[in-house]
Amino acid sequence: MSTYKQLTGGVAAPLGFTAGGIYCGVKRAGYPTNTVTAASIVANEPLQAEHKPDLAMIVSEVPCTAAAVFTQNLVQGAPIAVCRENLAKGKIRAVTANSGNANTCNADGVEKARAMCKLTAEALGISADEVLVASTGVIGQILPIEPLEAGIPAVAKRLKKDGTAAARAIMTTDTVVKQAALSFELDGKTITLGAMSKGSGMIHPNMATMLAFVTTDAAISTEMLDKALREAVGDSFNMLSVDGDTSTNDTLCILASGLAGNEEITAAGEGYDLFAGALRSICMTLARMMAKDGEGATKLVECVVTGAQDTAAAKTAAKSVICSPLLKSAMFGCDANWGRILCALGYSGAPMNVNAIDVAFRSAAGYIRVCEMGSGIPFSEEDAKRILSEDEILIEVTLRDGEGKAAAFGCDLTYDYVKINGDYRT
Amino acid sequence: MSTYKQLTGGVAAPLGFTAGGIYCGVKRAGYPTNTVTAASIVANEPLQAEHKPDLAMIVSEVPCTAAAVFTQNLVQGAPIAVCRENLAKGKIRAVTANSGNANTCNADGVEKARAMCKLTAEALGISADEVLVASTGVIGQILPIEPLEAGIPAVAKRLKKDGTAAARAIMTTDTVVKQAALSFELDGKTITLGAMSKGSGMIHPNMATMLAFVTTDAAISTEMLDKALREAVGDSFNMLSVDGDTSTNDTLCILASGLAGNEEITAAGEGYDLFAGALRSICMTLARMMAKDGEGATKLVECVVTGAQDTAAAKTAAKSVICSPLLKSAMFGCDANWGRILCALGYSGAPMNVNAIDVAFRSAAGYIRVCEMGSGIPFSEEDAKRILSEDEILIEVTLRDGEGKAAAFGCDLTYDYVKINGDYRT
Repeated sequence: MSTYKQLTGGVAAPLGFTAGGIYCGVKRAGYPTNTVTAASIVANEPLQAEHKPDLAMIVSEVPCTAAAVFTQNLVQGAPIAVCRENLAKGKIRAVTANSGNANTCNADGVEKARAMCKLTAEALGISADEVLVASTGVIGQILPIEPLEAGIPAVAKRLKKDGTAAARAIMTTDTVVKQAALSFELDGKTITLGAMSKGSGMIHPNMATMLAFVTTDAAISTEMLDKALREAVGDSFNMLSVDGDTSTNDTLCILASGLAGNEEITAAGEGYDLFAGALRSICMTLARMMAKDGEGATKLVECVVTGAQDTAAAKTAAKSVICSPLLKSAMFGCDANWGRILCALGYSGAPMNVNAIDVAFRSAAGYIRVCEMGSGIPFSEEDAKRILSEDEILIEVTLRDGEGKAAAFGCDLTYDYVKINGDYRT
Repeated sequence: MSTYKQLTGGVAAPLGFTAGGIYCGVKRAGYPTNTVTAASIVANEPLQAEHKPDLAMIVSEVPCTAAAVFTQNLVQGAPIAVCRENLAKGKIRAVTANSGNANTCNADGVEKARAMCKLTAEALGISADEVLVASTGVIGQILPIEPLEAGIPAVAKRLKKDGTAAARAIMTTDTVVKQAALSFELDGKTITLGAMSKGSGMIHPNMATMLAFVTTDAAISTEMLDKALREAVGDSFNMLSVDGDTSTNDTLCILASGLAGNEEITAAGEGYDLFAGALRSICMTLARMMAKDGEGATKLVECVVTGAQDTAAAKTAAKSVICSPLLKSAMFGCDANWGRILCALGYSGAPMNVNAIDVAFRSAAGYIRVCEMGSGIPFSEEDAKRILSEDEILIEVTLRDGEGKAAAFGCDLTYDYVKINGDYRT
């Protein structure tokens, strides 16, 4: 029996949290040319199909301990600057996020991000310092504030004990809603975590993913929350790559309400380990979902490297394989072109004995070894094709250099990736 | 008037060099299932269309001073190991290169590469130590030696004072022959350089390009030849990226026959500067050709960064822009999505003030500024589309951090890149 029980409800699953998502008009279909405004949307639901939701809100009944990691790109979205300010000031009550516009590389970006905090605070009767904001979409176009002036009060009236609408409202080129929730027992109390994320292109996080939000009712100190978040991201979102482009807006934040009533986790120990394991698990679930839903992707490609000199070497090697455009194209074509895996291992920068590498492919359709000790071995191309035709492919790389192990998550490179990105803006 | 005069003839242009290229049967169309053998080819030219040439040879009348740079991938083609051995022993007389099989990740690779040297030596009446070999094509499939046993003596009988056949015979997914030649005057003597290269996918050289060969009749010491080669590669092939995959077989070598009769270049000075400038020029020409002929590419994309803190920062920034799959896709779609350029600059790792970046696009159809001081400015989307519809696009990035300047060469990312690489082997 697993320690962690899977739940529904996403970010609204933990005690004290509600969430909502609506269309307010930031997305191109509605702004600025479309006559549909946030006000008219509020008056006339359901939305028409072309009005994809673009405004999400997560609210906690009580002030939350919070931690976050952001993109390491030097060019950073204006919302990130405002989040850093508010996180430094203390506890957090709400998150407001829009899709359709990244609010990045705009002269008035910080001003607009602060306005989003203020609008949220007014709608919820809290302080503007207690709000985190995030934006995702096109870079370098002025964020229209009018749809948000109407939309933020509107979404604040539609908060529910279900995170689905919020998870849907942060999607850009994503094709599936990405959320998860789980619970575990600690000191006789049930602790719940919920999470949602978005991200499909420009995905190659270097600290976090594009946008991911985790909620929990655990009582945990800021220090331990931050530690657990950084550990979780190292094995999950930081091992994910769709296209090697590190976004300007990557944001992962966690809010902990403390309403579960457990004794506050303030130090290492069983309680911390359980919580950190739960957080790692939910982040891994979302990272896999994001890889599988990479722009244009037809399949999830996971590379597990074992026997590396150490964990860092294993991570570097696994990620290099997942990032290779040639390997990604081969996966799209169900082609067992393992030479490209050796090539990607060789240029990864990880130390390794290249004459002691084994490679195998595994999927629901079977398992096949293709390379031993750095050289090809005879294998059935027909079997390989069948195995690689599944929608989740595991590439197993075995080195003979030590005990290091790591997994990286990615997807195939397809015509549709090019199509989506050849004409994203217009 | 330019110091350097453009010539025809490719690698056979300098005094003392001849070259040839034939189909011998390494390429799948002919081996092992096709009944056409090298022997039958020798007897019955011209070749049928499906028999793409796959064996090239360059020969010098006299022993040459030589220098080379190779891939930094840990996984290296067997021919590279044999080249290193022979370069360490002294002068070089001939280069034999096959396409269709990379002779990499094969247990018998070094043995086969040495056999290629021996066959070449026997055909030309020289020592096996005087031969360099190179192979390009699929990784991890045993190199068939039989076609080479017949082909090497055959090509040795077809050497001409024209490099075209050799340049054609090293092509894999390349669509155009890549060669160049130029001459300049030194001490009243005419010095000529010739060059050829191949490379279309798996192009992201970290020391050299996939395969490139330069010949010259200059008299120059090994030390100065090596220095000039390393300088030239830093501005040309090392600033080229098609897909971010550093090949296992990247090889760039130069042979200098000395037959021009100039006083040997043995130290820095005017002679060295002229020679180094010529070598740099011919390498830049080939790098641009390779970028434009990148797998599936419809256009050459060049990024020039000026005002960087130093040259290293400029190179890092320019290359990051050229390598971004999102930017490459936007270029395919003729979309002036400059936000992706700022994003790629921001994650490049180069130090910069992100609030002081200007971006403009330039082509034969005009010039358009799209970003000033890190923020978007109004521009005509129609004009931008027209400018980006050309087949050579220049992205001009201006920083305000110093005097560093660099250019990087790449291409767009297209459906055809995915198509070519989704089914390369089978």
